Amino acid sequence: MTVTLLLEPLPADARDEDLASTFRQVPADAPALRVGELSTQRGDGVFETIAVTDGHAQETGPHLDRLRNSAVICELPEPNLRQWRAAIDRVVGLLPAEGEFALKLVLSRGVEHGPAPTAWLHASPAADFSTPRAQGVSVVTLDRGYAHDAAAKAPWLLLGAKTLSYATNMAALREAHRRGADDTIFVSSDGFVMEGPTSSVILRHGDLYSTPAPSGAILHGTTQMSLFDHLAETGRRTEYRDIRVEELSTADAIWLVSSVRLAVGVTELDGAAFPYDAEETRAFNEYLLTPRE
Amino acid sequence: MTVTLLLEPLPADARDEDLASTFRQVPADAPALRVGELSTQRGDGVFETIAVTDGHAQETGPHLDRLRNSAVICELPEPNLRQWRAAIDRVVGLLPAEGEFALKLVLSRGVEHGPAPTAWLHASPAADFSTPRAQGVSVVTLDRGYAHDAAAKAPWLLLGAKTLSYATNMAALREAHRRGADDTIFVSSDGFVMEGPTSSVILRHGDLYSTPAPSGAILHGTTQMSLFDHLAETGRRTEYRDIRVEELSTADAIWLVSSVRLAVGVTELDGAAFPYDAEETRAFNEYLLTPRE
Repeated sequence: MTVTLLLEPLPADARDEDLASTFRQVPADAPALRVGELSTQRGDGVFETIAVTDGHAQETGPHLDRLRNSAVICELPEPNLRQWRAAIDRVVGLLPAEGEFALKLVLSRGVEHGPAPTAWLHASPAADFSTPRAQGVSVVTLDRGYAHDAAAKAPWLLLGAKTLSYATNMAALREAHRRGADDTIFVSSDGFVMEGPTSSVILRHGDLYSTPAPSGAILHGTTQMSLFDHLAETGRRTEYRDIRVEELSTADAIWLVSSVRLAVGVTELDGAAFPYDAEETRAFNEYLLTPRE
Repeated sequence: MTVTLLLEPLPADARDEDLASTFRQVPADAPALRVGELSTQRGDGVFETIAVTDGHAQETGPHLDRLRNSAVICELPEPNLRQWRAAIDRVVGLLPAEGEFALKLVLSRGVEHGPAPTAWLHASPAADFSTPRAQGVSVVTLDRGYAHDAAAKAPWLLLGAKTLSYATNMAALREAHRRGADDTIFVSSDGFVMEGPTSSVILRHGDLYSTPAPSGAILHGTTQMSLFDHLAETGRRTEYRDIRVEELSTADAIWLVSSVRLAVGVTELDGAAFPYDAEETRAFNEYLLTPRE
């Protein structure tokens, strides 16, 4: 069960349009994009992946805010969030009322020399993540090559944008698998914890939860923010700060959190066993599976 | 006049196939790719751009060698170069016998969860580069964020592969334009000259031509190699070495060289006028426009 909608992107300030006439469903296995697409030629576009859980699109507002922020960083036309929201509603309406789906939003710079960006939404069943959610993942740290202040000095590196140029992220996952691990945590060239290729990193020392400060070198994680809100509401202490790589090994627990896989605990770090809190991880995922705005 | 061929990639060791039956022409303005394409979702694939000059594909061998090398670095199935060469021949046969065209070769990891890579060739008329070839370009240096030995320490950064994840390269060109320049030269975070976003850098100090050593952090430029061969054959001295950014300002001439724009001289560097050798640039392009294998 997949759903694909092609969108004709409206200007951000467009009002009163018949929004439903600006998107149309296409078969998932039919060609929909031209070879001149800059998304495919140069990874030149931005995206979001939203979980659709039992008929509810999770954290739509934060995802759309980040889509807009990514577009601004990449100097793409600002997306019309009303239009995207209407298209998300349409996709959700076409999906089953039960089960977990991954809904990808893509905003591309369009066809080369073309007049306008192109955009689409594509929903497909989420992989079965019950095992990593329950049993955790083994992780290796890998050098991301950038200093942790690179984004401030060189905004053209687009580090704070969720761009389609993800070949390095995929290569880092292959390297992790080659080393016998399930996933990786990127470390800056000057020794700070950054993020996973497709996740945010949360540490717990005692009763304090921390995550790397979103300085621009990493993405501000929608799931991490949601979980931090939940922790604060239930009386726990959270903080954003620069985290040295050495602090990973002194943590009482580490999680990778992301929109679709949700929270997975780290059970092994760079080849050494790591304390894993199955009960707290279960509670995190119980929260993350509830409808969230 | 554009030509698009979709290719069904053969294994590298396949022989005896009817190669012509493994590719087919499609209209350039018709959808040809699915939204599940990993090239478009994650910039996950590799490419080459070949100049077709008056009916001759330039430097086909070096481009195909580099396509194969990029595929190896990205752990893509090794391309069948006989098949690609046959497809290039087909495209060239469909193009006019005169004029300059850009022929892009793309090898994508394929559709997500799909069984095989996807591939295509797309030829379109080259932009008119007569002005920059004759009059040169203004250039600013921009920090690439990586140390010049990053590739050796972190091969998952894929720095030596020509991947489709080019969003940063495009953003750097926009930054150059914002600063009033035509192009940019990337500098490593530790102060070494690297390459342009779509070109190689050649310096001349006196009668010695130099280019950054292809240590893995930069692409080994096909046009740069061809020009160095030509220089050596005509009695000039060339060398590969690590080049400090300070050496740019002491050079007697600097060129950016690439497959389609060919050689353009630097006339302005970081806002200051720079010596420009119009006659030598003209001679370079005269050579580069001759048929080359």
